[in-house]
Amino acid sequence: RSHHPVAEMLDLPFLPFCVLLGGLGFVCVAFVSAWCQHWRGGFALDGSAQTFNWHPVLMVTGMVVLYGAAALVYRLPSTWSGPKLPWKVLHGALALAAFGLAVLGLAAVFRFHNDHGTPNMYSLHSWLGLATVLLFSCQVGAAPTPHAPAPRRPPPPRPSLPWLAGFSAFLLPWAPAWLRALYKPVHVFFGSTILMLSVASCVSGINEKLFFSLKNGTTEYKRLPAEAVFANTLGLLILLFGVLVLGALARPSWKRPDADSPDSCQVPAPLR
Amino acid sequence: RSHHPVAEMLDLPFLPFCVLLGGLGFVCVAFVSAWCQHWRGGFALDGSAQTFNWHPVLMVTGMVVLYGAAALVYRLPSTWSGPKLPWKVLHGALALAAFGLAVLGLAAVFRFHNDHGTPNMYSLHSWLGLATVLLFSCQVGAAPTPHAPAPRRPPPPRPSLPWLAGFSAFLLPWAPAWLRALYKPVHVFFGSTILMLSVASCVSGINEKLFFSLKNGTTEYKRLPAEAVFANTLGLLILLFGVLVLGALARPSWKRPDADSPDSCQVPAPLR
Repeated sequence: RSHHPVAEMLDLPFLPFCVLLGGLGFVCVAFVSAWCQHWRGGFALDGSAQTFNWHPVLMVTGMVVLYGAAALVYRLPSTWSGPKLPWKVLHGALALAAFGLAVLGLAAVFRFHNDHGTPNMYSLHSWLGLATVLLFSCQVGAAPTPHAPAPRRPPPPRPSLPWLAGFSAFLLPWAPAWLRALYKPVHVFFGSTILMLSVASCVSGINEKLFFSLKNGTTEYKRLPAEAVFANTLGLLILLFGVLVLGALARPSWKRPDADSPDSCQVPAPLR
Repeated sequence: RSHHPVAEMLDLPFLPFCVLLGGLGFVCVAFVSAWCQHWRGGFALDGSAQTFNWHPVLMVTGMVVLYGAAALVYRLPSTWSGPKLPWKVLHGALALAAFGLAVLGLAAVFRFHNDHGTPNMYSLHSWLGLATVLLFSCQVGAAPTPHAPAPRRPPPPRPSLPWLAGFSAFLLPWAPAWLRALYKPVHVFFGSTILMLSVASCVSGINEKLFFSLKNGTTEYKRLPAEAVFANTLGLLILLFGVLVLGALARPSWKRPDADSPDSCQVPAPLR
């Protein structure tokens, strides 16, 4: 398709966008860490409020920043040709790392609640957050097999990373190609949905935490002390990160072309 | 493209989806109204807590349900042929109605705060919510001119609804076609983004309101009384509505085909 020169000039290529997005992700992690370190007393593993502080840091790092990185792997132009397996490994490794941090982040808040006799799972934030992580666990467990039919007899030798074989073949490894092809758009749809839910969870969680922490003892939230401005800004930065990732995922010109072609077959020639 | 029979069977057509979505939107409005009526004391216009109650009802009805309906107008297969103007009127009317309810919803909460000496605009919910409505006001103000170049000399006669002409021609009516073509994807991108931000605003707002309302005087939020279960469920229903609208907007087979063809020209023949 032909574009006007001004349109082309404004058409940011993917790699500079990635650098900007990576910078924004780093800022989000730095902000949430600085909030917990500077205003909320730092970090510990003893069940105290300092244990809770791992919760926002791990959730933002895992369910937003690493998750966003995992989602964007196939938008790298270098993934569009050659064997797909290394990129699948990267996508899976980033998603698994995100999931691991999310589980640790949940453990931190449950530990804190249990040690303080606070009930778990009552606020809308907690319902939404747990639903998000549960959806993500389904997504990790049922990673899609390739869109193009892979050779099924004789079975390809397993790659050297055992979990990769486990995860990428989890969804009915003997299922017919049409079923696997049917599942891929589901994986893609839930990929964006889970990020949206993560961002909504972060925003409601930051809002809730500020109402808890900024009470009469300190400067009230409604007086908008420096901590409130800082954490509100963190919430907006997380939203911006999420919107940019979702926009990048939806952008047609950044999608891997010809996903249905046999080139996109998962198992590269050397492994057959 | 060819699909497997099972894939085709599962491929819900747009109209039944719309009926389900409309039902879900109705349930969202009914839930938020019932919450405010049954547990929060109903509605009034005197600056009391009953004035505040208009805020959630108007925001959910406007920024989620009517907004979602406006966003989906061009997914109706009947809009894909014939003159586009009536559908633009419908899209614009729904968006304007959504915007009007959002402004009234903001007026309700500002009135309540001002009458109670509560500061405005301190929580992350308020920052996000106001940013969402401001983005929406830009979106309404700069409604896109047609993707295909419209005849510019002689100018088409104004349609009988003056605001339509005002809104649909607001964005630089003398701008070249390439600039208007450049703007349309921006409008589409911000269309989805604003809905995402609306849903995140609703979730954080419901969470915040429950912490405010369910205190020692009543059953605390953490004891999960019936009101908390009801309003948490409302939050999840709003999220589901938002995810379904965003999924429908992203679905390739539901998009108006050949958006670049001259058929999609805004001004139909009788008006030239």
